Amino acid sequence: MTDSVGVSLLGAGNVGAAVLSALIKDTERNNQLVGTKLELRYVLVRDIKKHDKKFKDVNFTKNFNDVLNDEHTSIIVELMGGQVPAKEYIASLLKKGKHVVTANKDVMAQSGSELTDLAVKHGASIRYEASVGGGIPIIGPLSRDLLANEIFSISGIINGTTNYMLSLMFQEKMSYQNALLKAQQSGYAEPDPYNDVQGIDAAYKLAILCGLAFHVDVDPGSIFCQGISSIELKDLNYADELGYVIKLLARAELIDNKITCIVCPTLISKQEPLSKVDGVLNAIQLQGNLVGQVIFEGPGAGASATSSAILGDVIDAAKNIKYSFSNLNNAQLNKIEVSNSENFISRYYLRLNVVDESGVLAAISGIMSEHQISIASVIQTEADQESQTAQLVLITHEANRGKIDSAINSIKKEKKVDSVVNLLPIID
Amino acid sequence: MTDSVGVSLLGAGNVGAAVLSALIKDTERNNQLVGTKLELRYVLVRDIKKHDKKFKDVNFTKNFNDVLNDEHTSIIVELMGGQVPAKEYIASLLKKGKHVVTANKDVMAQSGSELTDLAVKHGASIRYEASVGGGIPIIGPLSRDLLANEIFSISGIINGTTNYMLSLMFQEKMSYQNALLKAQQSGYAEPDPYNDVQGIDAAYKLAILCGLAFHVDVDPGSIFCQGISSIELKDLNYADELGYVIKLLARAELIDNKITCIVCPTLISKQEPLSKVDGVLNAIQLQGNLVGQVIFEGPGAGASATSSAILGDVIDAAKNIKYSFSNLNNAQLNKIEVSNSENFISRYYLRLNVVDESGVLAAISGIMSEHQISIASVIQTEADQESQTAQLVLITHEANRGKIDSAINSIKKEKKVDSVVNLLPIID
Repeated sequence: MTDSVGVSLLGAGNVGAAVLSALIKDTERNNQLVGTKLELRYVLVRDIKKHDKKFKDVNFTKNFNDVLNDEHTSIIVELMGGQVPAKEYIASLLKKGKHVVTANKDVMAQSGSELTDLAVKHGASIRYEASVGGGIPIIGPLSRDLLANEIFSISGIINGTTNYMLSLMFQEKMSYQNALLKAQQSGYAEPDPYNDVQGIDAAYKLAILCGLAFHVDVDPGSIFCQGISSIELKDLNYADELGYVIKLLARAELIDNKITCIVCPTLISKQEPLSKVDGVLNAIQLQGNLVGQVIFEGPGAGASATSSAILGDVIDAAKNIKYSFSNLNNAQLNKIEVSNSENFISRYYLRLNVVDESGVLAAISGIMSEHQISIASVIQTEADQESQTAQLVLITHEANRGKIDSAINSIKKEKKVDSVVNLLPIID
Repeated sequence: MTDSVGVSLLGAGNVGAAVLSALIKDTERNNQLVGTKLELRYVLVRDIKKHDKKFKDVNFTKNFNDVLNDEHTSIIVELMGGQVPAKEYIASLLKKGKHVVTANKDVMAQSGSELTDLAVKHGASIRYEASVGGGIPIIGPLSRDLLANEIFSISGIINGTTNYMLSLMFQEKMSYQNALLKAQQSGYAEPDPYNDVQGIDAAYKLAILCGLAFHVDVDPGSIFCQGISSIELKDLNYADELGYVIKLLARAELIDNKITCIVCPTLISKQEPLSKVDGVLNAIQLQGNLVGQVIFEGPGAGASATSSAILGDVIDAAKNIKYSFSNLNNAQLNKIEVSNSENFISRYYLRLNVVDESGVLAAISGIMSEHQISIASVIQTEADQESQTAQLVLITHEANRGKIDSAINSIKKEKKVDSVVNLLPIID
């Protein structure tokens, strides 16, 4: 083994280009994280001319054998999508002991355990964090951090296109057809939206999650699957009236040692966290015997978010090649200073006990103004008869903590102020 | 190396007992997951008599050297807590090339990178998923799945005790003192609550997260830290009036290559997802340059949830000993059947286009009743003048899908029904 770890890509579409850019741009950072040099070897594309102007000094090739037979390539990122020829390519690479990273939900849903067995047999590995939930870590947590749990149920909003469309229909009072058009115009739906709107994409992803959660192969074709094309604005409005939101939900439940898998538009109570997951966001909720309920939420699609998952897998695979035991935090990157909290900029909530006299607010706002802090709103209560004090609550505009602290010092000296009770930052 | 992997425990308190029970009870499952036998070796305790009645056939010892010198122990779970003697014990074990799993936030916050370096140097490893967020996978995702990201910010509700107390104060209109008392009675607060209510526990956890997110050592003692003991019910009510919720928030932000770390009660807008995290739940929100914003939510404390994280680490360490390359899904456990969706039990939403005649509802409810499906509520709209049809929306009580499907078949034959538009399950 040379000291560097060679990485080749199969495919350079949207996600591929994002991965390629990051590999080129973040070379030094990635090398530090891995502990050795990540070397870009080949990129398999159909049309070299389409790419070689944008990415200079990259070895593009049209010939898969250049990748397969390159002895300096240890990790291959498969981003072609679809079954053919991706599955055969992955299998040939694993047989050569290569480490594969893929975003291919189609292949992993239908042949995941076959390919994993092949990897184990040949001392190779296959990673597929990007195949479900885009950038949300879910494959890793299910297969490592939560592995001790017996999982009872999975509920997920795992198709960004349909979630975007349903959110849009309800929020903009739009028809299904117009929402689809807008999703296509915004790049959130494919020109041929069939797999997304019919729930097939979600069924693939659910099959992958079931494999990890229940340690069982689920044929994605056997999953009960109902798309969103019959949903009208009427349904969203009736649901709203009844206290629900409609989402395309993928669910698997383990009951009496049987699992039921179902993908369909579902009325979710507005009390449930999943009802609040709007737009292209994805979220996955799991129930385990030890952990109880955990939820993962984030951007479920997009080239950048997906490249986060792929590059995470690449770095993990490379670390696994470099070290026999994976340790979590053995890279010290560029020195970052830990800053003083004086520089912390925020809006603030300030509650004072003040003497019940006229001119209190004028005095306080004078002090704030001297310290260049402007006040956004005020609550002042009637005086408490017994103590003859009142509550004064101020909300400030953004200010840095240092200035706030010196203003508070002055306020404490003001004789109309009984005490400064609380100073708390605000997040809007 | 023998074919089994030996595991010893340091400590058998609440969490320790949960880990021990799971190791004993789930032996076969764990062995299948690891691919070899997980063998329980020694359990270090202060008082053997306190434990050996509850756990028979377990090798309890009061002597750390029994663990340190046991050549059959490969993985050691440290659950003693506190700095002394835990840190020295961990260091001695790592020097011997042993793999350590710990829940010790105190040690990891103050000596995390020192111990990790020691592990790397001796071909050992240290895992600490349980040190932050209880059962929520966060250490793993940050250090593997999200590793390619430059993280900009961390915001977390990472202390269950204070979150429980603040939720209780607001919901039950309770004073701080009464909420603390109730938390202590329910086991959610320690008899000495200082570290929790003063934010010190959260500062330790934030320091650990910063180490992973920013690849930098943050001294937990240097973190600006304000507890919740000054928060009165008044503050929660004023915040509510202004559209906010008060949470003890731990935050770190990277600005101009400096990080600011702060733990303090914070007003969070009710629009923000973190504002909805109540009771003993924890949640951590991260912003990365590639992934955008991701959120992890779940139970942040409790013996069972914490044991989920610890056992996940133990199994991962054992797999790492057994296989040179980690593969995600190479265990086929007991056969689970994939069930037919006919058995799927749910409440249902049913929307029909019906002819505008009297007796429609009677006809439909008659059919539902014949199929033993009871109706929970009904919406019927005025007829559309042009088409002479009306909308009928039924919400059913729980029924299985098979029965619903046969009811729908009968409904379709009913001449007063123009069409069955949508049938959707409901989650409450």
